[in-house]
Amino acid sequence: MFEPPVQRLIDEFARLPGVGQKSAQRLAFHLLNAEDADARRLADAIIEMKASVRLCRRCFNVTAEDECSICLDARRDPAIVCVVERAQDIPVIERTQEFRGRYHVLGGAISPIAGIGPETLRMKELVDRVETEGITEIIAATNPTVEGDTTALYIARLLKPLGVRVSRLASGLPVGGDLDYADEITLGRALAGRKEL
Amino acid sequence: MFEPPVQRLIDEFARLPGVGQKSAQRLAFHLLNAEDADARRLADAIIEMKASVRLCRRCFNVTAEDECSICLDARRDPAIVCVVERAQDIPVIERTQEFRGRYHVLGGAISPIAGIGPETLRMKELVDRVETEGITEIIAATNPTVEGDTTALYIARLLKPLGVRVSRLASGLPVGGDLDYADEITLGRALAGRKEL
Repeated sequence: MFEPPVQRLIDEFARLPGVGQKSAQRLAFHLLNAEDADARRLADAIIEMKASVRLCRRCFNVTAEDECSICLDARRDPAIVCVVERAQDIPVIERTQEFRGRYHVLGGAISPIAGIGPETLRMKELVDRVETEGITEIIAATNPTVEGDTTALYIARLLKPLGVRVSRLASGLPVGGDLDYADEITLGRALAGRKEL
Repeated sequence: MFEPPVQRLIDEFARLPGVGQKSAQRLAFHLLNAEDADARRLADAIIEMKASVRLCRRCFNVTAEDECSICLDARRDPAIVCVVERAQDIPVIERTQEFRGRYHVLGGAISPIAGIGPETLRMKELVDRVETEGITEIIAATNPTVEGDTTALYIARLLKPLGVRVSRLASGLPVGGDLDYADEITLGRALAGRKEL
């Protein structure tokens, strides 16, 4: 066993997702040998983030204000909403510079195995927004997984009766990829979704 | 880009060894969604460890006091010293319950490629201890790597003239291992170090 303060830090690191006992030890000893100021900066960043960051009351994106910068941006189209599983998916879509609407963060995807049903996600909030914000199109940008596909289908069934268009991100071959390396499911989707030239 | 407080935490996590940009994001968002108390406990553990932990003035093990609990333990034999590269190697050796002497933490191993020479390690402090503490045997428990072997040889050349025995941890097949899976260098050492039954 290590000295109690070291062991305590190892235990805290080991609680983080994807950090095993060995990595937790490595991280703790790295900080032990690091400059006081460097270790302090990490601790402060954690405290500061928890103190200042919350969820946008409209779309549940991460924000330091009451509403996030995207929802507040008057140049964006409030009629198109891109639905994502997690807040960290938003910057990924933003980087494409192809989307000028707003977002809605579900907080996950439907997964019966993991016990995540629609009622644990922000579906009710999404319906509320569709009913009150003049939304005409929903893009289901959940992950291209069984759970993400299920969630997209659920959203379509839920919202189409309200008169909005619901679309799904296209599945297919990654740009710059190689046919040889494509798995058969992706290739199958690429075939089914083929476009005439 | 993420909100500044989130990005700052991602950057701090990404500075840690073995944590890439993606893992840093995952960790930051995990803490974002975690309970305030959980995030706070991690930050406190970092601050508390930096505040309370220092290096034993004798052996450079991690300690909350002036000397570490091993050096202070009167039942341990001060004449035998096990030399390790890093403080985190000490609990590993302690767990074997085969060693009842003291330790000496070098702070690394000699590596010309990484620019680590004997003068950057705690060799002078080791010589001082041999000259003043009545040490009769040194066990070089550096890692079984080129750097660890070089360091062990250096220690032997440095300390044998002072009249102490210097030994090295045995290399060979790991117990419970399978011949089939042993690499040829380990197997070669196991042959060279064979013991008559």
